[in-house]
Amino acid sequence: SYVLGAQSKKVISSKKPCKRLVLYYHDTMFTGNNAGNATAATIANPNGTGLGPFKFGKTVVFDDPMTPDKHFRSPPVARAQGFYFYDMKTTYNAWFAYSLVFNSTKYKGTLNIMGADMMDEATRDLSVVGGTGDFFMTRGIATFRTDEVEGADYFRVEMDIKLYECY
Amino acid sequence: SYVLGAQSKKVISSKKPCKRLVLYYHDTMFTGNNAGNATAATIANPNGTGLGPFKFGKTVVFDDPMTPDKHFRSPPVARAQGFYFYDMKTTYNAWFAYSLVFNSTKYKGTLNIMGADMMDEATRDLSVVGGTGDFFMTRGIATFRTDEVEGADYFRVEMDIKLYECY
Amino acid sequence: SYVLGAQSKKVISSKKPCKRLVLYYHDTMFTGNNAGNATAATIANPNGTGLGPFKFGKTVVFDDPMTPDKHFRSPPVARAQGFYFYDMKTTYNAWFAYSLVFNSTKYKGTLNIMGADMMDEATRDLSVVGGTGDFFMTRGIATFRTDEVEGADYFRVEMDIKLYECY
Repeated sequence: SYVLGAQSKKVISSKKPCKRLVLYYHDTMFTGNNAGNATAATIANPNGTGLGPFKFGKTVVFDDPMTPDKHFRSPPVARAQGFYFYDMKTTYNAWFAYSLVFNSTKYKGTLNIMGADMMDEATRDLSVVGGTGDFFMTRGIATFRTDEVEGADYFRVEMDIKLYECY
Repeated sequence: SYVLGAQSKKVISSKKPCKRLVLYYHDTMFTGNNAGNATAATIANPNGTGLGPFKFGKTVVFDDPMTPDKHFRSPPVARAQGFYFYDMKTTYNAWFAYSLVFNSTKYKGTLNIMGADMMDEATRDLSVVGGTGDFFMTRGIATFRTDEVEGADYFRVEMDIKLYECY
Repeated sequence: SYVLGAQSKKVISSKKPCKRLVLYYHDTMFTGNNAGNATAATIANPNGTGLGPFKFGKTVVFDDPMTPDKHFRSPPVARAQGFYFYDMKTTYNAWFAYSLVFNSTKYKGTLNIMGADMMDEATRDLSVVGGTGDFFMTRGIATFRTDEVEGADYFRVEMDIKLYECY
């Protein structure tokens, strides 16, 4: 559905990432008395701004563990550091910007990611807009799939990270 | 004004985008009693932080309609979901990060955009840093031109989106 | 430590940027009575959210001068416009997204940067995810090195900006 100009030099197959990582994001909200377990905190508008009933404007900063499987207590292989906010008045919908920070024997470096998280969709794609260290200059797609929601204070998202530019 | 290194392999003509979209962004602020029409809300510092008289630090989250012409009531062809804040003490100036979310018969996917909005300039360029779906892995430039401002509660910006990397 | 797919067409030497700029970022916080000198202001949670003692969730918007040397009073060659927040409960750690805005005889245009600022590390890399004007479509790495911290109200960071994609 778009026109490729003659100056477009790169041909990348959308079916073959040069690297792929499937990780689980665990977001445990700070409720005031769980600082030992919590890894995320509301920084503005805990109940939203009043524009609709879906917490429009509630904003959260996080330093969440990323595990290779669904288990909250598995050793994290990375941290997800960044923020999200809710941004729709007719349903729950969010917007994310964050870094995946790797510091293990396998990987050292970061992936930087931003995009819309349309929570009603089974899966949704965000952009990997850059990387550092072992992920030097990479780009790609991070596909979110909600894996579990436990009330307002914990949710888990599968992040299927496909890199299409590797160096 | 810069040196091209020998390792720079891509040659992209800045004059020929591989795709171009001109859309209008309508930002209608929530004032407390217009939830039906409003699509944006202040999440912090409605009057700024006090660092100068230009609302430095006022921060807004939006889910704004994008129309193909200037008319607020035209059917939107995308949503702009993200945030901006004012960030200068000597004039109005803003910084934006957001996604354009397309979900129509023509396009499905997103464009992710960030950059400085120097509101005193006739036009200003932000970066399209990634895309998904029909805009898979794209990059480019989004040129803002303020089209109308109606007090503090509505403004319209023409966004001329030129993509230079298409896949 | 990663597999290069056959569709990866670009070969970029990580040792040879096509352009490099070393600049100093000066962050002077607004304390309520220093509007003449201050160029940054806290927009949320001046003391953090209570998740740990390291100001988790404190968020700052800035329009900071960038100088070619360490001297605060040197003529700035760019402005850094954006925001950061603290995001760790066990140490000081931050996350940045901002634009470097150049408007001089030498350069006109912007660089857009985002990433994790792991303040305990001697150096840390963020991603240059796009550029405009003289930096049209560029990408690269911005390496932060803390150069000086004076209490809570001033710090200086060396930003070593290496661009690996130039056009």
